[in-house]
Amino acid sequence: MKILILGGDGYLGWPTAMYLSNRGHDVHVVDNYLRRKVHAEAGSDSLTVIAPDLASRVSTWREVTGRTITATEGDLTEWPVVEQVFTDFAPDTIIHYGEIPAAPYSMRDRGRCVLTQSNNVINTLNVLWAIHEFTPDAHLVKLGTMGEYGTPNIDIEEGWLEIDHKGRHDRLPFPKLPASFYHCSKVHDSTNIEFSCRAWGIRATDLNQGVVYGIETEETKLDPRLATRFDYDETWGTALNRFCVQAVIGHPLTPYGSGEQCRGFLNILDTLRCVELACLNPANQGEFRVFNQFTEQFTINQLVELVQLASKERGLDVSIEPVANPRVEKEHHYYNAQHTELIKLGLEPHLLSETLVEHMFEVIIRNRDRVRPEHIMPRTTWRGSRPLQASGMPPRQVRPADELVKD
Amino acid sequence: MKILILGGDGYLGWPTAMYLSNRGHDVHVVDNYLRRKVHAEAGSDSLTVIAPDLASRVSTWREVTGRTITATEGDLTEWPVVEQVFTDFAPDTIIHYGEIPAAPYSMRDRGRCVLTQSNNVINTLNVLWAIHEFTPDAHLVKLGTMGEYGTPNIDIEEGWLEIDHKGRHDRLPFPKLPASFYHCSKVHDSTNIEFSCRAWGIRATDLNQGVVYGIETEETKLDPRLATRFDYDETWGTALNRFCVQAVIGHPLTPYGSGEQCRGFLNILDTLRCVELACLNPANQGEFRVFNQFTEQFTINQLVELVQLASKERGLDVSIEPVANPRVEKEHHYYNAQHTELIKLGLEPHLLSETLVEHMFEVIIRNRDRVRPEHIMPRTTWRGSRPLQASGMPPRQVRPADELVKD
Repeated sequence: MKILILGGDGYLGWPTAMYLSNRGHDVHVVDNYLRRKVHAEAGSDSLTVIAPDLASRVSTWREVTGRTITATEGDLTEWPVVEQVFTDFAPDTIIHYGEIPAAPYSMRDRGRCVLTQSNNVINTLNVLWAIHEFTPDAHLVKLGTMGEYGTPNIDIEEGWLEIDHKGRHDRLPFPKLPASFYHCSKVHDSTNIEFSCRAWGIRATDLNQGVVYGIETEETKLDPRLATRFDYDETWGTALNRFCVQAVIGHPLTPYGSGEQCRGFLNILDTLRCVELACLNPANQGEFRVFNQFTEQFTINQLVELVQLASKERGLDVSIEPVANPRVEKEHHYYNAQHTELIKLGLEPHLLSETLVEHMFEVIIRNRDRVRPEHIMPRTTWRGSRPLQASGMPPRQVRPADELVKD
Repeated sequence: MKILILGGDGYLGWPTAMYLSNRGHDVHVVDNYLRRKVHAEAGSDSLTVIAPDLASRVSTWREVTGRTITATEGDLTEWPVVEQVFTDFAPDTIIHYGEIPAAPYSMRDRGRCVLTQSNNVINTLNVLWAIHEFTPDAHLVKLGTMGEYGTPNIDIEEGWLEIDHKGRHDRLPFPKLPASFYHCSKVHDSTNIEFSCRAWGIRATDLNQGVVYGIETEETKLDPRLATRFDYDETWGTALNRFCVQAVIGHPLTPYGSGEQCRGFLNILDTLRCVELACLNPANQGEFRVFNQFTEQFTINQLVELVQLASKERGLDVSIEPVANPRVEKEHHYYNAQHTELIKLGLEPHLLSETLVEHMFEVIIRNRDRVRPEHIMPRTTWRGSRPLQASGMPPRQVRPADELVKD
């Protein structure tokens, strides 16, 4: 297949490019290095050392495997970039990771909020218009997020909900309760894509992905220069990845609030396989198909306890010190999300285990000197300078986040 | 009350400003004349003669009534404009009409689609951040549209839906099936505002308005220089207004497709009263309240027949000639939308009647020489150059839209 990967320089984009190239597909990647730039601005960085740009990445890939990945450095909010990529490469599948992915970034201030939404909405609109105009039969595989649904008090279905209401029935988009302006931007994308399928007959799969953990894939292990980025800071790092880094550097593990928040998680290896399965089994023309892409549900406390246990096995004494929740979210809630569609297509999940955590420890230990602990603790609060809403929960002993910063 | 009206130069914004000023409120309006500019570009114009700018409008208003409306000419996507207006005027209510309102405009091409969404999403984000930072107790009254819901096969409720699913219950945002990229932009706004209420405690009322008809209000009638704009062209005109213009100039009435599409409608006088009722009865802190703002449901054919009947009474012989539907929409569908919340607050609807239509005829006849018939017929199709989707409907005798253009 001719597969275009948008955001091909990212944590998931680059491993996906290598994975699909390794399986014989013709892969072209596009990225504008936005993630690298915002890290540089903030003084944070990937834990792993990554190649400096796409040119060096694809050159190493050719050297190591003999396979070719082509690349464009460009901004998808600029139509001439999108137009040229679609007309030159003429993809039959587009995997769209090319968005600003961080909830805290979108909540930090007005400018970052507007940048997140305008970047994500405009580049996805450009992609939809490009498919409509240049490659109407191409299949869009768009990365969404489980965070679009929030935590409703009913089971979360895969994108659509069969609704009986006052004696009538319809199948309608599942209602969304996004948890940040970033998550709102992904809801906007879903709205635009669903409309485009209906109005234009575009075929699309929206992969509402859970929280991804893991550092290595079959392809990143081929050569150190093929490593993917690994973020552990408050802005770009995700829960389990961040807890593992905290454990290795002797920092207390810091769940936000009660730690009873429940979410869906998956191994980076399963991300690659899920995206592949979506590509190999495309949506029908005009179909807006949604898969919930995760393999297991955990509470934050379960993750913290798993990391603490794995730490003990290595002789690390790691404490758990909850911090005041910087987010506005329910801390005690029902959570049961369906995730069977990708299993039906052939996904065999890599489940989370102590072994996986220990393996992550090894990679983190190798890069330990690169950890910048001052970027771990949350400094962005959802309410800004306004007081946190009373949660109605019994008071809990927490320490202010900044007391826990170590360096 | 101190009421800030965004989009205060528009078809509804300017009458709303006068209506509320006339009732003793302190009114400030903001507009960037975007509607005037796109009309100038397209060579189309308001049927009515309107004052050239906000300065002359508020000056006439003062001269006629002795009351003061203040005004800012500025673009709400520019933060310094928003910041200055909120800090200088410190509103306790914000009525937000300040968006690009046209479905055909948003579907015409990629550039207009992106402009519509980025303008609407960014200026609403700016307003939310301004409320959060400067006037956290202020009440946002945001104009949404019934077109956000589309035409589901169940009753449409007012913004929220009580859902029973697999033995559990929740009240969740009503699922949306927007009908154009413009309608998608209003769904995006609703998503952002609902999140802001939940995360920041903002109080907001989203008025999902039906199709507005009518030309005159108590205040516009005070002086010809206080007239509001009236659009009848394919892009900015709405169904009933356009049919009345067609009748007066002897143009066939041109429903799109079967004409069995059903929608909610309301008189411009009721728009003013609904907005006033929302302001006088604000949402609670943290509440995202949605009212469906229309008074009656009609099919397009019902409107066309009403206009034909009123024409006959005036001795006008007006034919009905359906044209191929330029939109992608269901032409035979269930439609039953709730609209009781504004009635509960005190709305006494002005129902549509032949008399109203005849009264609109009089205003149109006075301005007959200003009609530019070449702008009436639809030239923007939802599918662009791609063929219309087979509807599964029996074929219907329709004439291509351009055959019907008269001048």
